[in-house]
Amino acid sequence: MTSVTAYQTEASIFSQSEWKSNHSVRQARLCQETGLVIINWEFGDDDVNQNAKRRKMTERSTSGETIRKALSTSYPYIWLRDFCHCEQCFDEASVTKKTNLQDLDLQTATTQISVDDDGKHIRITWSDDHESVYPSSWLWCNRFHDTAPDPIMDLPPEFWRADEIRDRLREFQFDELMTSNQVLYDWMKEIKTLGLTMIKNAPQNEEALSQLGKRVGYLKDTNFGQVSSVYAPTNPKNPIYTAGNLFFHTDLTYYQQQPGIELLHCIKQFEGAGGDSTLVDGFSVAKQLKEIDPEAFEALSSEDVEFYQTGLMGPGRYFQMARNKIIRLDVNGEPTQISYSNHSRTSVLRMPPERVALFYKAMKLFTDLLYDQKNLYTYKMEAGDVIVINNFRVLHGRKGFEMKKGSERHLTTAYLDWDLVYSRLRVLHTQLNM
Amino acid sequence: MTSVTAYQTEASIFSQSEWKSNHSVRQARLCQETGLVIINWEFGDDDVNQNAKRRKMTERSTSGETIRKALSTSYPYIWLRDFCHCEQCFDEASVTKKTNLQDLDLQTATTQISVDDDGKHIRITWSDDHESVYPSSWLWCNRFHDTAPDPIMDLPPEFWRADEIRDRLREFQFDELMTSNQVLYDWMKEIKTLGLTMIKNAPQNEEALSQLGKRVGYLKDTNFGQVSSVYAPTNPKNPIYTAGNLFFHTDLTYYQQQPGIELLHCIKQFEGAGGDSTLVDGFSVAKQLKEIDPEAFEALSSEDVEFYQTGLMGPGRYFQMARNKIIRLDVNGEPTQISYSNHSRTSVLRMPPERVALFYKAMKLFTDLLYDQKNLYTYKMEAGDVIVINNFRVLHGRKGFEMKKGSERHLTTAYLDWDLVYSRLRVLHTQLNM
Repeated sequence: MTSVTAYQTEASIFSQSEWKSNHSVRQARLCQETGLVIINWEFGDDDVNQNAKRRKMTERSTSGETIRKALSTSYPYIWLRDFCHCEQCFDEASVTKKTNLQDLDLQTATTQISVDDDGKHIRITWSDDHESVYPSSWLWCNRFHDTAPDPIMDLPPEFWRADEIRDRLREFQFDELMTSNQVLYDWMKEIKTLGLTMIKNAPQNEEALSQLGKRVGYLKDTNFGQVSSVYAPTNPKNPIYTAGNLFFHTDLTYYQQQPGIELLHCIKQFEGAGGDSTLVDGFSVAKQLKEIDPEAFEALSSEDVEFYQTGLMGPGRYFQMARNKIIRLDVNGEPTQISYSNHSRTSVLRMPPERVALFYKAMKLFTDLLYDQKNLYTYKMEAGDVIVINNFRVLHGRKGFEMKKGSERHLTTAYLDWDLVYSRLRVLHTQLNM
Repeated sequence: MTSVTAYQTEASIFSQSEWKSNHSVRQARLCQETGLVIINWEFGDDDVNQNAKRRKMTERSTSGETIRKALSTSYPYIWLRDFCHCEQCFDEASVTKKTNLQDLDLQTATTQISVDDDGKHIRITWSDDHESVYPSSWLWCNRFHDTAPDPIMDLPPEFWRADEIRDRLREFQFDELMTSNQVLYDWMKEIKTLGLTMIKNAPQNEEALSQLGKRVGYLKDTNFGQVSSVYAPTNPKNPIYTAGNLFFHTDLTYYQQQPGIELLHCIKQFEGAGGDSTLVDGFSVAKQLKEIDPEAFEALSSEDVEFYQTGLMGPGRYFQMARNKIIRLDVNGEPTQISYSNHSRTSVLRMPPERVALFYKAMKLFTDLLYDQKNLYTYKMEAGDVIVINNFRVLHGRKGFEMKKGSERHLTTAYLDWDLVYSRLRVLHTQLNM
């Protein structure tokens, strides 16, 4: 039997329950007219209602995923040929395809197919005598437009409003995060699903975020360095320090590649009134906007807005600028990134002047929803707290404050990339056997 | 007169020639029905054909930009009110708007407008008695859908094929790049417009790319660290080392935030046959694809493809995975990012199986064009060379090679973010008075 272990390299991109479902191929046949292999499935004995599943239907699986359990699935010849994982076609050590699309024959054909090993594999001999073997678990996972959501990237968001997050917000202990992989996994998963987590009892020094970055992998470098500090009072001679509201924003909206996750660490908190952090679920607000005013939602998700920031930092002057949609959508029309920072918005709007009033109406409605009391969550940080924010989703701000004489405030900020966090999540997901 | 210097903070986001064009406002009037301020322009005496410009027409300016020189331009009340740069509305020191959209009155109105200082400013008194002054240069630059392209982000690409790049490829001396801001600017601009540059005579050690990164700002951190090395032979005991073709790809296609610029440094080049770098302009190929087969172009620019890479690196196992379109388009339908790495492509295609054959036809045609001799440029690196690639645009690969016994090959790779390079370009653009 040809080895099929190489297909295992893709296991982590699929739902673990599907990968391990052990469904067997009952029948595999060739449809020469369409160039498709049609597979009929035999569902495992562990399935509670086998007969129901044989009918084409949508049902909720135990893991909460909605899976279209079809009687049959189909696989284009060209795709099967392209994904042959034999030693000649695939290098298991480097996890790369050895073949180039130039050499792939678009007319690739076969007349020989068999179901092997009690339905655990199918075997195809191609017209050029190349032989390919495909495991049923891999075929079952690959259902094209019916493929299950990615177990990491597609973890569904839990939308929240102020009263919901108040109960739901999860606290993680800094020490546990640094030592337990399970806690690390839970924490990163929470950033993905809820967009907001809290770390308690972090060391009250500037090293804490670097330690956290190292624990995950690395911190994202920006024009502001890896970890940047904000102090108050800015001038210690000023006896009473006051600051105005910091309006809702996502961070570094003037970057084309906005940082994915923000870590906001309170090293010292001042004595005095105000200074609460304000937080809001941008995805939830986008959803509300779409319901209330679809035209406004359409405007904010289709027009580019430009943001900028300039100043002096480290080696010299910087001038960051980027174009972003306030609500970026994925191919399914779901919000995937919020870019909003009214105070950094440039005057450039590349649309007909006649459309501008509508666009302002949309921006203002979105803003009003951000500040709606049902959405706006406030929390006053304590020394040792790290607020962790999905910067593609949750907007943050700060209420104005007045410090007592002699008191101090010291915060640090750092960023993580989603690319890094997704990678860590995916590896731990498999290692912890989630 | 109210100070209008705060508008200067936006100067760098506009065409410098437009900003300095000194056009004067001839007349400004209110159109209450549409809520627009209509401005008629007086063009400067330095304009060669003033009468022609008074007619609404498109013409090529001396700087090579195509500017629609309109007799009149219009400005929505709400937008003007929002961009008041007086001390109450705008903080010049931090370059931020002080106002929040919540407080902006969508019905903002005015009945008082005047043209001041021989047409250098317009002054508006709003219905709440707030007064705003706008400089004509800023108004002239802000023409909404007729706004000139951004001087940095929109620098037009020079598409190339193999014979064109052979003549056109520009070499920069490492030492000059490290010391001259003009050379640094020219080099970064060349990465933007051509997508490919060559640095000669870099130090033949692993520090060279770090020095280069520091010169620009910082290197992008990835799962592979900041600078990663490739050696051959991998096993020095192997007397004859051979390697196969490395097919065309963009780097780190399995990142959602793919690195924008790749630096590929040759520290040691082997003796023997082959090993030439292969390079191709992905934007040029995308353009060719669109002409030859619009349906293929549409498929590659609308469907997500998934890429992955897993292995062991530094602290442990990584599993990078991302969804990208092979050809990502901007709002104008122009290619803005190529993500292609056939050897890292996963089996997941979230489309109906019936569409898969068409998608393969599109991918294969794109690939065939990449390898078309008219497009494919080859260059064998010498020790001290750094190939610099716009990783959103230019694909690279390497021909197979066979090394002479005892010879060695050592390359390092590092990445820069476009966000950083755009910032540096924009600052130097102004400082060097380009």
